[in-house]
Amino acid sequence: MSEIWLSSLKTDSPQEGFELAILLSRRGVKYTQPDKEVLQKLRPEYANNADSLTAASQVVAINFQTVAAANNYWK
Amino acid sequence: MSEIWLSSLKTDSPQEGFELAILLSRRGVKYTQPDKEVLQKLRPEYANNADSLTAASQVVAINFQTVAAANNYWK
Amino acid sequence: MSEIWLSSLKTDSPQEGFELAILLSRRGVKYTQPDKEVLQKLRPEYANNADSLTAASQVVAINFQTVAAANNYWK
Amino acid sequence: MSEIWLSSLKTDSPQEGFELAILLSRRGVKYTQPDKEVLQKLRPEYANNADSLTAASQVVAINFQTVAAANNYWK
Amino acid sequence: MSEIWLSSLKTDSPQEGFELAILLSRRGVKYTQPDKEVLQKLRPEYANNADSLTAASQVVAINFQTVAAANNYWK
Amino acid sequence: MSEIWLSSLKTDSPQEGFELAILLSRRGVKYTQPDKEVLQKLRPEYANNADSLTAASQVVAINFQTVAAANNYWK
Repeated sequence: MSEIWLSSLKTDSPQEGFELAILLSRRGVKYTQPDKEVLQKLRPEYANNADSLTAASQVVAINFQTVAAANNYWK
Repeated sequence: MSEIWLSSLKTDSPQEGFELAILLSRRGVKYTQPDKEVLQKLRPEYANNADSLTAASQVVAINFQTVAAANNYWK
Repeated sequence: MSEIWLSSLKTDSPQEGFELAILLSRRGVKYTQPDKEVLQKLRPEYANNADSLTAASQVVAINFQTVAAANNYWK
Repeated sequence: MSEIWLSSLKTDSPQEGFELAILLSRRGVKYTQPDKEVLQKLRPEYANNADSLTAASQVVAINFQTVAAANNYWK
Repeated sequence: MSEIWLSSLKTDSPQEGFELAILLSRRGVKYTQPDKEVLQKLRPEYANNADSLTAASQVVAINFQTVAAANNYWK
Repeated sequence: MSEIWLSSLKTDSPQEGFELAILLSRRGVKYTQPDKEVLQKLRPEYANNADSLTAASQVVAINFQTVAAANNYWK
């Protein structure tokens, strides 16, 4: 993967930071399963399952901790 | 999602911070499954399952760590 | 939920801090499932399941990290 | 639970800190299921299951983070 | 394992840091299951399962917290 | 367990720190299930299961956070 997709953890606002946390979470998946078609096929499976959604939200929460710290919590 | 829903991690009290952590947890879900009807349909599934509730509480706990740090623990 | 249940993360001792972590963990559940009767009904289900108890203990551990940091580890 | 079981997070060594983390993990379980007989009965169930043991080790790891920070990593 | 595979947590960019987090996550697996053939055989199993991918992404997120802190968040 | 197995969190390199994190993860299991024969018997069960390996890697990641902090990230 030579494409540049993450050059900084700095964002202008907490909300953009949260969206960066989502990006990080998706990239974590993509490094394991790079095939977009497979990912597309799996989507309905977890997007319609409450526990899968909670698990996805947890990964976002962990990445958001990192992004928030990197931005000194936008203080 | 152009709507502004998170402009600051600062809250007036720990309790409001905890409620913000809940909002963050729900937003983490909503970015993956934006369809409100689907979310509504999934609700009874996890709201009546002990393990699902524990998992939801865990995501809140992780987000609360972030919010608490952002507020210097309301010291 | 207009009731005030969390006005401070400060506690007099680590043990009280641990008990506050338990309260936070339960509140995390309660915001998702506010119906006390349902919660009561679910109790035997997870209180008699080893993995559910471990999961509950994990949420407490995460919340205890927050409470301990807020109290500067009672140093 | 009026018994005092946690008066300090300070320990003399990392190993004692690790053992305190185990105590915290067990207490997290005990607050949810205080009945010793039930806990005894559940023991073989998870002590002979690889995933349950990994989950238990994870709770210890989280609590050890707290204890280690409280002891400034025994530096 | 006498091979040197991790001499520093420092990376030039957040993206390289994320890739190091992925390496750490894989190494965590490899210490438990060093047999490459077995790992190869298990790959399709989790690379085509949404919950397995989320779990993998979560380990990356946790390791990324460590790498990011080690790099002072590339500030 | 009177044996001394953890006298310091300090290591000479990140890699040794990672190996210490693995030791901590295994010890977390061993305190719950001290019987080596049982542990040996459980090994194939999780060493050949992708999700079990991911879970094991997660515990290592959490312990590595602690070890890395204790070593000031080997800066």
